[in-house]
Amino acid sequence: MASAVGVLFVMNEFELIRQFFVEPTTDAMVRLGIGDDCAIVAPQAGEEWVITTDTLVAGRHFPLDTDAYSIGWKALAVNLSDVAAMGARPRMVLLALSVPDADPAWLAQFRQGLFDLAQQHGVQLIGGDTTKSPLLSITITALGSVASGQAIRRSGAQVGDYVVVTGSIGDAAYALRHPHSALQHRLDRPIPRVAFAQGLRGVAHAMLDISDGLAQDLGHLLRQSGVGVVLDWSAIPIHPLLAALPLPEQQQLVLSGGDDYELCFTIAPHAWPVLQEWAAQTNTPVQVIGQITAQQGLSLSCQGQISAWTHTGFMHFDSTTTSP
Amino acid sequence: MASAVGVLFVMNEFELIRQFFVEPTTDAMVRLGIGDDCAIVAPQAGEEWVITTDTLVAGRHFPLDTDAYSIGWKALAVNLSDVAAMGARPRMVLLALSVPDADPAWLAQFRQGLFDLAQQHGVQLIGGDTTKSPLLSITITALGSVASGQAIRRSGAQVGDYVVVTGSIGDAAYALRHPHSALQHRLDRPIPRVAFAQGLRGVAHAMLDISDGLAQDLGHLLRQSGVGVVLDWSAIPIHPLLAALPLPEQQQLVLSGGDDYELCFTIAPHAWPVLQEWAAQTNTPVQVIGQITAQQGLSLSCQGQISAWTHTGFMHFDSTTTSP
Repeated sequence: MASAVGVLFVMNEFELIRQFFVEPTTDAMVRLGIGDDCAIVAPQAGEEWVITTDTLVAGRHFPLDTDAYSIGWKALAVNLSDVAAMGARPRMVLLALSVPDADPAWLAQFRQGLFDLAQQHGVQLIGGDTTKSPLLSITITALGSVASGQAIRRSGAQVGDYVVVTGSIGDAAYALRHPHSALQHRLDRPIPRVAFAQGLRGVAHAMLDISDGLAQDLGHLLRQSGVGVVLDWSAIPIHPLLAALPLPEQQQLVLSGGDDYELCFTIAPHAWPVLQEWAAQTNTPVQVIGQITAQQGLSLSCQGQISAWTHTGFMHFDSTTTSP
Repeated sequence: MASAVGVLFVMNEFELIRQFFVEPTTDAMVRLGIGDDCAIVAPQAGEEWVITTDTLVAGRHFPLDTDAYSIGWKALAVNLSDVAAMGARPRMVLLALSVPDADPAWLAQFRQGLFDLAQQHGVQLIGGDTTKSPLLSITITALGSVASGQAIRRSGAQVGDYVVVTGSIGDAAYALRHPHSALQHRLDRPIPRVAFAQGLRGVAHAMLDISDGLAQDLGHLLRQSGVGVVLDWSAIPIHPLLAALPLPEQQQLVLSGGDDYELCFTIAPHAWPVLQEWAAQTNTPVQVIGQITAQQGLSLSCQGQISAWTHTGFMHFDSTTTSP
């Protein structure tokens, strides 16, 4: 439990918030849930665990007017997406919630958003901390399990691999720039590709989720694998609302916009038919957007021109668009 | 990795911060550390894991003028203290750091405080998230290991048990009220009782750490064990600086002041000699401060008067002292 410096005899409000999030434990692996100094979990033989933590800060990771349900949903979704990106099964989460006050209506909605998504994936809330803070901020830690040695890392991409993405890219960035559009839900309530991702074990050579923009995230995968890619702009799946924009804006949203929480992974070309089958079974749109090269770096093939991506963006971009 | 809504092509600053915290992995259990969507760990057979998360918010959990080294130290210490309170061995931590800017001097000191304490206990930083935020806030998640079934919970106290505390109580609350006193280090750099606590497995029936004040924390242990206690005020170890204060102020600091991160646990009376031996070996002051009763609730025996503790404090307290 966190202490509250300078607060004597007062924490019942936050003790109540904590109680608010207590739920019965249904995962046999969880020996002890919320209510002690720590939770206790009993790992199963033959399994490894994956662990991640992500913070959402109000006004930075979601617009200030975002509804509480969406905030609860999204705070969990971004973490489940990280677990999914390892090909692991999400199991447990801890919630560190900092809120300006204990507004029961807000908390009820926040809780509902978080628990609705958790229940969809059989994820248990096993611990946490609630603190009063002038700024709304949520840090969730998620734990997942995976058969030993089967987690899909970023570092396994091989020359010749297809680079594949799920869903459409740039939707969330579009929604951020065009409030109340038909893509608003893509920003507010991302859907982590949990079930689909678990079927990629033994198939995908490398994987991550797209949270900071396709170019930057894929760049991590390439560097960690020691390879490069040529992306085919025309193959990248984008929503019709984006396709209607001028090309430079399209490219900025798609390549540098964040928050999509789609998966990006590489597979051997011969695995493509099997992958398509799995994608159909799980109702997951997939698209090959490029191929891994021995030549390092990220290049974009668009309208017959090939551009190299650098830390400040693709080289042909107008420099005024590279700062927020 | 957290996304940065609305931030296009800019995160290098925070990417750098992340790099700042990467260190070589020395725990064989850690299969993959910082740098992927998740860390990967391989649990050992026969072990359970304990997990906790705690947030420190600037100005709330530490004074705004606290030095960066102490903040890094304390953010980890409060979490290691929770792991210790289960009798477990801390192994790994994840750091979610929200900072207003990327001041290298501040970060270097923060990192040093955190890593100095981590290295003392062989704890590995295996993951995290760095975000820009107008408010400094640190959430750490700590994982520890313990032989299956051996974790010490809050719920095991038995009638007749001695209630024991380590160290002296109320020091941190004193330091908060009297800045720059000889007890400042007790507020800024608490020392989690990690080694001592691991020797309590099979000895202590129930345990927790004192973070929100002795009365409130011990109250949790009592409720979860379905028992009560009579505390002997004269037996509670306090520092001479506190002993020099008027009694009501002493009691407020000792019983309701937080942030001590000392341990409070119960043992069978016959285990006291063994416990004293272990305490001497680990250079840990211990003191019996009361005995568990079948009669529920927390009572305080002081100067021949017995008072009952309620949610708003001990009944004989001046009511004006029960709010901050």
